[in-house]
Formats: sequence, structure tokens, C-alpha cells
Amino acid sequence: MKKQHVYSFADGDGRNKKLLGGKGANLCEMTQIGLNVPPGFVITTEACLDYLEGGGLPDGLLDQVREQIGRLEKATGKSFGSGPDPLLVSVRSGSALSMPGMMDTILNLGLNDETLKGVIEQTGDERFAYDAYRRFIQLFGKVALGIDDEHFDELFDSVKAREGVKADIGLTAENLKEISEKFLAVVLRETGNEFPQDVMLQLQLAIESVFRSWMGKRAVDYRREFHITPEMANGTAVNVCTMVFGNMGDDCATGVGFTRNPGTGDNEMFGEYLVNAQGEDVVAGIRTPKPLIEMQEEMPEQFKLLVELRNKLESHYHEVQDYEFTIEKGTLYCLQTRNGKMNASATVKTSVDMLDEGLISKEQALLRVNPELLEQLLHPSLDPDAVGEPVATGLPASPGAASGRCVFDADLAEKLGRGGEQVILVREETRPEDIHGFFASEGILTSRGGKTSHAAVVARGMGKPCVAGAEGIEVDVAQRLAKIGEQIIHEGDVITLDGGTGDVYLGAIPTLDAQFSDDLKTLLSWADEEAELKVMANADTPEAARKAGEYGAMGIGLCRTERMFNASDRLPIVIDMILANNRDDRQKALDKLLPIQRQDFIELFTVMAPNPVTVRLLDPPMHEFLPTDHQLVDEIRMLRVYLDVVRGRQTALASIENVPPLPEAFTELSEEHVMDALAKKERMLSKVRELQETNPMLGHRGVRLGITYPEIYSMQLQAILEAAAHCAQEGIAAQPEIMVPQVITSQELGSVKRTVAELKSKLESEKGVELKFRFGTMIETVRACTRARQLAEDAEFFSFGTNDLTQAVFSFSREDAENKFLPMYNDYGILQDNPFEVLDIQGVGQLIEMTVQNGRAVRANLKIGICGEQGGHPETIRFCHHVGLNYVSCSAPRVPVARLAAAIAKLRADDFVGVIRPAA
Amino acid sequence: MKKQHVYSFADGDGRNKKLLGGKGANLCEMTQIGLNVPPGFVITTEACLDYLEGGGLPDGLLDQVREQIGRLEKATGKSFGSGPDPLLVSVRSGSALSMPGMMDTILNLGLNDETLKGVIEQTGDERFAYDAYRRFIQLFGKVALGIDDEHFDELFDSVKAREGVKADIGLTAENLKEISEKFLAVVLRETGNEFPQDVMLQLQLAIESVFRSWMGKRAVDYRREFHITPEMANGTAVNVCTMVFGNMGDDCATGVGFTRNPGTGDNEMFGEYLVNAQGEDVVAGIRTPKPLIEMQEEMPEQFKLLVELRNKLESHYHEVQDYEFTIEKGTLYCLQTRNGKMNASATVKTSVDMLDEGLISKEQALLRVNPELLEQLLHPSLDPDAVGEPVATGLPASPGAASGRCVFDADLAEKLGRGGEQVILVREETRPEDIHGFFASEGILTSRGGKTSHAAVVARGMGKPCVAGAEGIEVDVAQRLAKIGEQIIHEGDVITLDGGTGDVYLGAIPTLDAQFSDDLKTLLSWADEEAELKVMANADTPEAARKAGEYGAMGIGLCRTERMFNASDRLPIVIDMILANNRDDRQKALDKLLPIQRQDFIELFTVMAPNPVTVRLLDPPMHEFLPTDHQLVDEIRMLRVYLDVVRGRQTALASIENVPPLPEAFTELSEEHVMDALAKKERMLSKVRELQETNPMLGHRGVRLGITYPEIYSMQLQAILEAAAHCAQEGIAAQPEIMVPQVITSQELGSVKRTVAELKSKLESEKGVELKFRFGTMIETVRACTRARQLAEDAEFFSFGTNDLTQAVFSFSREDAENKFLPMYNDYGILQDNPFEVLDIQGVGQLIEMTVQNGRAVRANLKIGICGEQGGHPETIRFCHHVGLNYVSCSAPRVPVARLAAAIAKLRADDFVGVIRPAA
Repeated sequence: MKKQHVYSFADGDGRNKKLLGGKGANLCEMTQIGLNVPPGFVITTEACLDYLEGGGLPDGLLDQVREQIGRLEKATGKSFGSGPDPLLVSVRSGSALSMPGMMDTILNLGLNDETLKGVIEQTGDERFAYDAYRRFIQLFGKVALGIDDEHFDELFDSVKAREGVKADIGLTAENLKEISEKFLAVVLRETGNEFPQDVMLQLQLAIESVFRSWMGKRAVDYRREFHITPEMANGTAVNVCTMVFGNMGDDCATGVGFTRNPGTGDNEMFGEYLVNAQGEDVVAGIRTPKPLIEMQEEMPEQFKLLVELRNKLESHYHEVQDYEFTIEKGTLYCLQTRNGKMNASATVKTSVDMLDEGLISKEQALLRVNPELLEQLLHPSLDPDAVGEPVATGLPASPGAASGRCVFDADLAEKLGRGGEQVILVREETRPEDIHGFFASEGILTSRGGKTSHAAVVARGMGKPCVAGAEGIEVDVAQRLAKIGEQIIHEGDVITLDGGTGDVYLGAIPTLDAQFSDDLKTLLSWADEEAELKVMANADTPEAARKAGEYGAMGIGLCRTERMFNASDRLPIVIDMILANNRDDRQKALDKLLPIQRQDFIELFTVMAPNPVTVRLLDPPMHEFLPTDHQLVDEIRMLRVYLDVVRGRQTALASIENVPPLPEAFTELSEEHVMDALAKKERMLSKVRELQETNPMLGHRGVRLGITYPEIYSMQLQAILEAAAHCAQEGIAAQPEIMVPQVITSQELGSVKRTVAELKSKLESEKGVELKFRFGTMIETVRACTRARQLAEDAEFFSFGTNDLTQAVFSFSREDAENKFLPMYNDYGILQDNPFEVLDIQGVGQLIEMTVQNGRAVRANLKIGICGEQGGHPETIRFCHHVGLNYVSCSAPRVPVARLAAAIAKLRADDFVGVIRPAA
Repeated sequence: MKKQHVYSFADGDGRNKKLLGGKGANLCEMTQIGLNVPPGFVITTEACLDYLEGGGLPDGLLDQVREQIGRLEKATGKSFGSGPDPLLVSVRSGSALSMPGMMDTILNLGLNDETLKGVIEQTGDERFAYDAYRRFIQLFGKVALGIDDEHFDELFDSVKAREGVKADIGLTAENLKEISEKFLAVVLRETGNEFPQDVMLQLQLAIESVFRSWMGKRAVDYRREFHITPEMANGTAVNVCTMVFGNMGDDCATGVGFTRNPGTGDNEMFGEYLVNAQGEDVVAGIRTPKPLIEMQEEMPEQFKLLVELRNKLESHYHEVQDYEFTIEKGTLYCLQTRNGKMNASATVKTSVDMLDEGLISKEQALLRVNPELLEQLLHPSLDPDAVGEPVATGLPASPGAASGRCVFDADLAEKLGRGGEQVILVREETRPEDIHGFFASEGILTSRGGKTSHAAVVARGMGKPCVAGAEGIEVDVAQRLAKIGEQIIHEGDVITLDGGTGDVYLGAIPTLDAQFSDDLKTLLSWADEEAELKVMANADTPEAARKAGEYGAMGIGLCRTERMFNASDRLPIVIDMILANNRDDRQKALDKLLPIQRQDFIELFTVMAPNPVTVRLLDPPMHEFLPTDHQLVDEIRMLRVYLDVVRGRQTALASIENVPPLPEAFTELSEEHVMDALAKKERMLSKVRELQETNPMLGHRGVRLGITYPEIYSMQLQAILEAAAHCAQEGIAAQPEIMVPQVITSQELGSVKRTVAELKSKLESEKGVELKFRFGTMIETVRACTRARQLAEDAEFFSFGTNDLTQAVFSFSREDAENKFLPMYNDYGILQDNPFEVLDIQGVGQLIEMTVQNGRAVRANLKIGICGEQGGHPETIRFCHHVGLNYVSCSAPRVPVARLAAAIAKLRADDFVGVIRPAA
């Protein structure tokens, strides 16, 4: 038996998106649940893969297509390729995952010189027929025959210009006929062949071109950017669907809708339509459409049908739907539906609302929110006090606020954005070809198109602010400027967008932190109930800890004490400590630091009580607190010159290069003053050289410092324990955790633990309190992973430092890699992600899993977490849940993301495709 | 029943060295095989550990000692602590492993004012009795009562000076009596108590002090230096043995012997003796003893007995023995025996000889040679052409040659030696307290003592050259100089020792490489038959490869192509390649390198054919080939000043510091010349800054270079394959192996492999030959370990780069660690070894084991080796054998060590105490 490559909408399995693509499966499903879908059929993704592999359409496919066309003819009473009532079809791509605009579509297929006449006869509308024909020739010419759009556009515009019309609607049937004929000539000129009149050949070429568009540059870029693997979507299906027309007169319309407002989440009719128009007119933003709600007046019967459709979609799919419809001579057709892409706050609100309405369960309410989306909510908004008058206002197409330099094309946006500039992509309208510019921009501004225009949809998907259809702005790419009335904005000028209001401002405007909505709080509280992983924050100061608490952090998973050392009131003391040549001098500096550190810890513990605060003992190498060799050499050189000047030898300095102008107040400085400064800098330089390391990340740091200068760790431990004692005396339920960095052997850990034990018993007897705390270790060296059993003897908790661990596993450091070869590695597909952003499960993860097993084998209740930057990433969190960690710790603004991700990790635990484990 | 703490020599189990110590077990064994051993008993190591733990002698021990003393009294007819024939005993330490001189010994115990009279009566020799008494008081005073030797020595020397005698033998009975009395007064003065007259109390204190000496500084240092763990030796036994006297007249003697010559391995009577002397006189080198062979004339009867003893020892122990004997009034007693320590060549020779004599098996012949010993044989000897007249000659006490600065005490030797100076320790005689100075010295020179003196024994054990008893040299520590006749050598002057001849030279003398003896060749050929691991060498040039072949390398396991780049004819081309700003310029430089590299490879492959040559593609970061930032900044600054000078602005330079004097020829340089140089240096500086990395070990190197600059690897691959093609055409059985460094993913490896495949098929069709080679990868990143399965798909071999892997596992780099904290880590016992010298089995080894299993699971015949510096270390080799590697690769001079170690690893495979594996 021949393999089935083609399924009619009435037969295809609506759940099999892998085979039929998302759009195709939905068309089948909609057909089968009784929605009014124009009849059609789906060609499978399997056929696409066969085609891409073998270079031709699979055997039997065309026969099956012919059979389905026959069925369409029977169902519609029309005939394909002949009059009097010719069948026209649309040919659309659709893969398992939605990739909006990334692949090709052809409409009105089936038109040729002969069927054109049939259409004219049938509709009695010559203008409509030629309009359809010229659209078809252009689209088919571009997609199936590879002819540049420009050839058609120029021609079209020249006729419009000649006729003096602005909108397409102003063109007459005669004009359109002329255009069609000229388009046919373009095809002949550009391809050397006549436009194909055989409609089955049209269909075959269309199918093949859609298949090929799966491997087109746009589609490949998109999949790489969004990490779409072949397991997630492989090949595109082709949907062949009877054409219905929204442009056959004023009883026709076409539109797109969301079952709820995707900007706010409000439960209301949302969408846009155009009377007497074809679908692409709405999406491409060529005419500015009207809000759906106006249909209630304009086409009340059809509006009722639309409300019915909307309700049916939501109650069937249990999800907000993004649908397309066409009204052909009063009859409403549903052409497509898919899950609606919404911004974060709308997604959150609809989750809470749909649960209230009984449409979805709590589990579904959580699962339908992509945790990464929540970061949008944590984006700042414009400071209302700083906001002045906008220079322009468009549609609020994607919320959020952003400032950046104007850039007028996607290539330059990509170049500058990747180079670290903040840019705003400003276009008349955007097209799928601009996608790479979106990725690199802070926000998008267009002068044409609505809230469902390409720019709006894509920006929302990416969570970037977008103002669309700001008609007051005139973009002049050739001149590299935009005009707003008299105002001229040059490329490179800074502007600010408010995607929530649609306002555009000149210059950069300060922003305010996001506020949590009640809906978000509700959703996150459900997440916390569901999750097994706790979410902590990395925070180094009492203020940061307070902030983290607001984000819902359940404690501080990493407090980096060296950041305390860097505060300006402490750094001079720290430098004295480092410059000390003996233990006594060092101790004197440490004695000054002790009360400062103790006070920090008292505040931190108090803010977070009764939640834990994990304090990491001093980690970075000492030289990090000193200026660099270069700086000191320069300063010393300068001071020597000044000394000469002070001593009266100002001669001939002008002939020496690289001596900066003398400070004005300089002559007032005394010789002693300069000499003192010089002596101190020279001491610092000599210390810097003594401490110099070839590879500072692999040097004298972490517990190695604690072992070689035990008095430093002793001071820190004393500060922590004294703070704990203070809290105990005050009745504050402090929960300090002491964490040792860079450990490689249990001997190191044991050595610090002995100091802790001594200080504890001394303090307890002095203060008459019982000190409660945990003692544990970072796991950030590979050796610590291999010694987990031994370390678990002394450690009550492990915290994976995944930045350092990743570096050790990959043998490259973040800064050296990201500046040199990592981008190329990602481009070449050697590495899929940046392992410093997304935990490398295959390498680092394998060590983590091994460590967890071995640590818990020794200490069953060992508390284990992760405190690298990857800790706030949902994929990483999923892995952490899988291997049984107790917590993740991340930067405060990532805490809400992590809380939701933790719940989803639990809910989706069964699908986890985990680590490839070594054979026993 | 009470625990048995004490065993008589007649009862103890001669195989139980753990319980009875090596010496004690041997005394039991010797007694039980019928040698004439003075009766005695052993107190167990268990009792020692009990004592050290609890702070007192274990219950019942003293009762058991009393019972044994009773048996001795019965056996000898003497009585302990009373006349007329008092029993005297020696009390000696002895742990499971020999630690010569590291612990304490007391002789003549049992003497007191009363028994002294008994001895006088019994022997009729007042002088002998007082001599024994004064020796006992001093030794007991020092060891058991903690009195400084000086107090006794000063007194003794003052009497000798007063009497005008030089040797002790010149003192009269009266003198010795006076000395004994004064010694008793010293004890009273220094301790506040009378010297103990109760002989059981003497015995108890002696036992306790021997026990305590296990934890004495000397012993602890020794165990740390030689990595003696508690599993190997824990606690010391105490041997209590009836005293026999070699100093009761001219029919008495004492001596030490080796069953074969420990310097040459010759099968001959070897040793020294002194007539009318006590054992310590021989060992301490206070009198210079005679060679044993002279006994044949002097005491022919006893010599015959001695030959019989020697033969019995060897045929019983199947090993060269180091024995002590005493002749008391004509009767020969054997006091001690142990396996003889020999230098490398003697050990090798005796292995071969004893096998020929049927004394040992081939397996035993291999096992009895410590592979590390062989390094001695690879030490250079003095160049005979450069050798002039020695300034002094002593005994050739430990072979080998060394030059260094004279140092007159062990503390200074240690300080300078650890600081990187090459020093020779020069002493009148050495004592156990000097041990730390030995470790830090290149060689030892003494002016007194024989070939079995402390200096000689210890130096031989360490494989360091030693010239002993060079009597012409007068060491004056106070003046920090040594006199040889008129010649004065100051501390710090360089001298050279030839430990093989006993000659001492002024200044440094050039050396020659060692030659392999036939015996060594024989032994190593047996080793190769036995071993499963192959031994390769690391070599980068054809000359080095030839040399490695002479050492028996079975191929080149690591050829570092970057070392080829550094040769002076290539470096400028390499720099041009690095400075190239585009691919074309880079290719031009590479085109120049190609023929040079090809020729290198042709020579290398030819030299090693038919053995493999593993070529590692370029590994280090590019900036390693350029001068440093500092260097360039200085050069540029200087060139600018010169430019000013050339341009005639020489004014006022004198007032600026840090400008060096102008070169004399300077005025002849043209302005253009200086400007050209300046431009080139500035380009270099800008490239250096572009390439600068924070952590060069973690940066842009290895295959990351190969991916980002594919033309570099292409050139190298082309050179390798063209060389292979050349060999194939010439009929040379070349075996190239291509090795990719720093790999973290299979994608990297696959990318290089594709280039290889393209070049291969191109070359094969061009040249009409079949190219045979292996393609493989370094495993030197942790991630490569975790991806072993994937890598084994493409790699035909793995080579562990254990230097980088160790760094990644420990997260510290060798240079930063060794200069900063590693010595302290070793001192504190946090790490037992330097993991860059001895493979860390617990961490790095665990990854290696996992990698081997996973790699072979995919490719059963995967060839796996190790090419880090640890590859030549016997412990590492043992581990490599255990985990089933195919080869190790090490520096050429370590190859013989590794060959023997590989055989021993196989023979001892069953005792391997391996990796602690993670739970499944």
C-alpha cells in the first residue's frame, strides 16, 4: 500500500501536530468540531522531509493530491483549472511549532487566463478577479519562481502614481488588468518562461516551494535563535485550502482576532478587520484595520457569529486563541486558529481568570505561562515624573519601555546591537526578513501597521516593547533619518518607546521598577505551593536582601562578602590588610573590619529572618582589591614627573611625550606630600607584583586564602557568629549559613570547621546563647565533585557554584571565551548555548548528578542548591528539580521566573529528557 | 587473658613485620633459622601505639618484660641489675619499614654503680667497664632523659684535650672513670635527679623513649618525605637484646657488612669492621674502619664464620642483606639483618646475577628494583675530558656526580636548596638531625666516616652522590670555610663531587649522559616482556626522538608542534602569521611554514618507524609567540626616545629617569630605520593587546584556534599527511597519529576530522599512495571526560593530558599553585603530593577511569594513553595499568623508569588499592 501523504481536514488527527503541523492539525480539529472551515487538506511533514532529502516529491503524493482536489471539487461544486465556477486554493506552510512569517504562503492558486474568465463570470466583478490574479502572479512569482518582489512593486507603484491613487482600492478593474498583464510579462522576462497555466503544475510548484522554505535562511535563523530542535519540529506541512474571499464587496471582510486581549488579558472581543479586503492586507499593515468591536455596528449578524466562534474556540482549546476569519458574502469562515501569543501580564491574567471561570485547572494555569515571560513584568517602566511630551504616538503593540539609538535597517541594528549598543529598530513596516534586527534591538517602532502587524506579533513574542503604526513618523531610509513634522531624528539619535501606551519620546527617559500585579502574586503563590525547589536570591547588602524579599526570595543563597569589602569606607582598610608585611599589622586592619562586617551581618540576618542567609567567606584573590600594575606604573611615573616639577626641574618636559598637563593646584603641593604618595604607590606596586598570577581564576583564592592567612577567615567567622549571637539575644530567628569557597579536599573544609567550632563554643559561653547555623561548602571545583562523600562528612549543605564549575569543565573562562571564540562556536553549532547562561547538562550536569548521589549517600538530609548565574534559568531549574536539589539561588529580578519555573519543573518532571549517564 | 605485648626472639613470627618491626622480625627469623643471635625479645608496635595514645605503657607490659628478662638471665647465666656477672642489654627501635637513624637506640643498659663492679670483676678490664658506663650514661641521658649531647661532649673533649690524646682509645681506665663520674654529675645537674640505679626503671624509661621517638621530629619528617603512611608502618617495636661486646680486647671486633657490594653489585665480601670497638664506632664514623676483607688475615677463623653467615643470609632471604655483627672474645654474633639498600646499578646487577645464580625468579628480579632508582643511572657522570686534578679524594660512598655551592650546615642547605640553588652539603660527619639538608642538596661530602657511615647510607637511599671520609678536608663551620692543605674553600664556592670515584673538584665540571649497562638492558628487556603498558616518550624534534629511542621508547606519545614553531628560523614567520590582518596574509605565512613542518615530520616519522609518532596540533594561545606587553612598551618607549635623539632633540634627557644610555652606534641609525622598527613594534603591541587574556590557560587555544583559524590546522595536517605520503613512497613504515588538543565537544573533533578526510583523499589520488594514520584526541578537559562516548565515535585514540586535566580538576594552575600555596598545602598535609607530579587518583583518576569505560563502551579497541608529566611516575603508571590504558608517554630520561614500573604494575596488579568509586 502507498504511504498516506495527504489528509483531508475531515480526516486528519487534530492531535498529531508533528505530522500535520500546528496549523494543519488545527484546521482538521476545527473542521471536526463543527466550525465553518473552508474545505481543504494537509500534506504531511514527513512528505516534506522526504522531499528535502531526496530532491523530489515522494511517490504517489501528487496522485493523492489530485484525489483530494477531486473531493474539494465535489464538496464546493467548483472545478480546479476550469470554469464556469473555478476552484481557487491557498497553499500555506505550517510546522509543529508556530514560526510566524518564517515560511511561505501562496493565495488564489488555480487562477490562469481561463479560470480568470470563470471568476469574472461567476462574481460579475472584474475588478475583484484581476485584483486576485495580480496578487497571485506576484506571490507565486516570488515564492515559487524566485522573482524579486521589487520587479512587481515598482510596476504596481508606477501605475498607482500614474493614476494618482494612494490606496490600492483606488485602482480600477482596468488598471488591475493592465497590472496583471504586465506581471505576466515580468514572469516571462525574469524566468524565460511563460507563467504556468497548468493549475496542477501551479499546485506542485507551490507545494515544493513551501517545503523548500523550511530550509530557507529566515526559518533556519529563527529555529537557531529559539533553539528549535528537530525533536520539537521537523519539516513543514502544507495546507491546501479552498479560497474564500473577503474582498468580493462590502458584505465581505477579513480579520484576525484574539479570544482575549493579548496586551492586557482582558476577557473581551479583540482583533481587527477590514471590509472588502484579503487577509494579507490586515497582517501586512498596508491598510490600517478597524477594531473588531466596530463590527457590532457594521455587520451585526456576522459579529454574533464571531462571538460564537470565539466562545467555541476557547471552550474547546482551553486556551486563548489567535484566529483568522474571512466573511465571504455574509458567510463567516474560520481559516486558522492557534494558541495566542501574549505578553507576560496578559498571560498571567488569563491564567488566573480562566481558572476562575472553570476553563482550566491550577496545574494548567501554571503550565501555560512560560517563566521567561515573567521577566517582561520585571522590566522597568518609564518614570512618570520624568516623562514629558511624546513626539509621536502609535499603537501600544507590545508593552515595556526601552531607550536606544535609532537604527533604520535590520542589518545595522544587528551589527550595533551585537556590538553592545542599545538600539531601537525604526521601520515603516517590518517584514520577516528583518527578524535578525529584532533580536539585537531593545524595541521596535513602525510607522505603519496595526497591533497584529508583523512587528507587533514578533515583538510580543520576544517580550520587547513595540510601538506600531505611529503614522506621524515618516521614515526616510535613504537619508538615514525620520521626520516627525518639523522634527528630524537622525540615525544614532536616542529615543524612548513606551510599548504600553504607544508613546515615543526624544532622548533617554529614566525608568521605574516593575510592580507585581495581584494576578502575578496569585499565580506565584500557586507556584510556590506546587514547587519542590526553594528559590533563593544572591544578595550582598541589606538593601539588596530587602529587595530580594519583595521578589519572593525564600532566603539568601549567596552573600559575597568581598562585595562588602569593596565599599568605599572599607577598601582602604582592606588595602592596609593586604599591604601588611606581618600577621600583627594584618590583624590590626582586620580588627577594624570586624565591627563593620558584624553590623552588615546583623542587618542581613534580621532582614531575612526566619529565612536562611548563606554567607560565602572571602573568595577572590587579594590583588583584585588593588589597582592594576598598569595603573600604578602610570601613577608612579606621573608622581615622579611631578616630583621633578616640585623640585624646580621643569625644564624640557615639553619634549617628552605622554606627560599629561599638570593639575592647576599642583604647585601648592609640597615635596613631602608627593614623596609620601609616591612611597605608598610603590609599596602597592611591589605588592601587586608579588601577588601577580598568570591565571587569576586558577590561583590563590577562596579557601586557599583561608588556609594561608587563617586570620582573615577567623575575622569573618567571628563577625558572622557574633551577629548570630546578637540576633539570638534580640529574639530574632536568624538562620546563618557559613559557606567555604573553592574547596578541593575535606582537609580544607575540616580546617575551617575547627575554627568555627572553637569560636562557637567560646562565644556561646561568653554570651550565654545557643548559636544555630549551618556549615557547608561551595562545590565549584571538579575535585570537590569527585570528593563529595568525604566533603559531606563535614558539610551540612552543598552549593554548586556553576560559573566556576562550568569554567573548570570547559577549560575556558567566561570573559576570555565570550570575547573570543564563543560567538563563533554558537554560530557553527559547536555549542548550542552559552554554558555560562544555560547549564551544560551533558557535562557539568553529569558531575552535579554524581555529586548529589554521593553526597546524599553519606548524609541523607544534605541540603543542596545551586548559586551560579544559571540558577535563574528555567531549563537549568528543570534539571535541578530532576536531580533532587533543594534550592536554586539567582539574582533578585530572576526570582519570580525561577519560582514559576520550579513549579513547572515539578509538573513536567515526567517528560524530562535527562543526562546521558555513564555505563556502570 | 592478658594481651601479648612481648615475644622472645625464639617465638616471634619472622613474617610479622607489622607487629614486630622489620628488625625485630628479622632477629626472630635469624634466631629461628639457627644463626648465632644474642638472646632477646621484641615489644610490639601495638604496644607502642597504645602507649602513644594513652600516655602510659599498656597494662601487663612490664610484667611480660620482667618475665622475658628472667628468660634471658636463664639463657645467659647472667643476672639483670646485680653481679657478679651482670646482664646488659641493648634497646633498639624498629618499625615495619626501615627508617635508618630516625629513632632512638640505647646500649649497655643494665649498668649502674653496682653492676659496674660486676663487669669489672667478670672481665677484669676496668677500662672496658668504665668505657661502657660512660657511653651508657651519655646515651641514656640524651635519649631517655633528654639531656643535650653537648654537655657530655664538651666534658669528654676537655678530658681528651687535657690528656693530649686524639683517639678515644688513648684514654685510660682512670680517665674514663673520671668521665663516668662527671657524666653522672651532669645528669644530676641537668635533670635535678640522680641517674637511675634501678635497672628495671632504666629499661622502662628506655622503652618509653624509643616509643616516643616514633613521633619525634626527625621520624615524622622522614615519613612525610618518603610518603610512609600508617598503612605502611605504624608505630615502632622495641628490641631488647643481650649486649655482646666488640670492645673487650683485640679478640673482639664489631662490623657491618653487605652480602654483596652495594656500590657495584659485585658478589664479594663487603663491609667494614673495627677491632676492639663498639658498633656505634663503625656507624658514626668516629674511627675509620677497615674493609672486611682484611679480617681474612687478621682474624681468619672469624672471617670463615662471617662468610658462612653471609651465605646463609642470602640463601634464606633471597635478597642482598645489610647485616651487623660483633665478635666477642672470638665468638661471632649476628646482631641485625635487613634488605640491603643499594644504588641503582648495584640493584640492577644483583637482580641479573641472583637470577643467574638461581637465587631468585625473573619476577623477583624485577620486583626488587624500585623503578625510581633507575633515574640514578640516568644521572650524568663527569666528562672525563673536562676532569682535572681532584683537590681531595674520599670514599666513593654513593655514585653519581654533582656540582653546587658548598654549604656547611643543613639548615642553610635547606634554605638555599628550596630557594632553587644547587648546593653540596659539606660536613665533618653527618647525623640524623641533618636529614633535611640532604633532601635539599645535590650531593654530600664528609671528611670523616666510611662507606657505611650515616652520610653514605642516607645518600645512597636518596640516590644522591656522596663522597665520605675525605680526610684531607678540614671543615671549619665557625669560619664558614673548609681547608684542603693550603687551599681554602669558602661557603658558596662551587665544587663538584664524583660519588663513583670519591674525587672532589673545585668549580663546576661538565657532565656526560649515562650509558646503559648490559645488566640494565637485560633487566629492561625482561620488563618489556612482562609489561602490558607500552612506554612512549614526549619528544618534539628528530634529535629528541632519536634520544628517546635509545632510552627504549616505543614511539613518540606527544610531539608538541608549537615547539617547532619556536625555532629561530620559524618564529619570525609565525609572528607574521599572527600579525596578519586577513586570511590571505595569514595564508602567505603558513605557506612558508608548510615545507619546514613537512620536513620535520618526515624526519620524525623516519627516525621512529615503525613505531607511532603522535603529533599534537597547535595548542598554546597565539600571544605566547609574541613578546609581552611590558617588553613591547619598554621597547617602544626607548625607540621613541631614540627617534627624538635621531631628530636632534637630545635636550634635557638627563633629567628623565629610566632612560638607558644610548647605544654607541646609535647616531648612525637613520630616522627611517627607527621609524620602521617603531611601526613594527607598535603593530605587535596592538596585536598583543587584542590577544590579551585574563586567564591564558582558559582562553583561546587548542582546537578553539583550529576552529577559528582553520587555515592553521589545515597547514599542519597537510604537512603531516604529505610527510606520511613521502614515507609511503620511500617504503618507510611511518605511523603518524594526529591528535587534537583542548577538545570539549564531538563537533570540534568532527570538524577537524572532516578536514583530515578531505586532505587524505586529495593526497591519495595525487600521489597514488594509501595513507595510514590514526586520528584521535587529547582528553585534557573535564568535559571531554564526560563526553567520552561521543568522542570515541570519531577518535581512534585518547591521550590524557594530565597536566591540564589536573589543573581543571583542582581549579588551580601549576605555576600559580607551586609559587604560592602548594608547599603550605603539602606541609599541612592537606595534599599529600604535588598533583602535577603524582597523579591524583582520587579526583583526576576517577575521571580517567570513567572516561576509559565510556570510551571503550563505544569503541572496544580504543587506544588510550597518558602524556602528562605524571606519565613517568611509577605510582601513576600503576594506576594506568589498573584502569587498562595502553601506554604512557613521558620525558625521554624517564622512559627506563616507566618501562620497569610498567612491568611491576602488572606483577603487583593484585595489590592495587584503587579509586574510591562513586555509588551507582
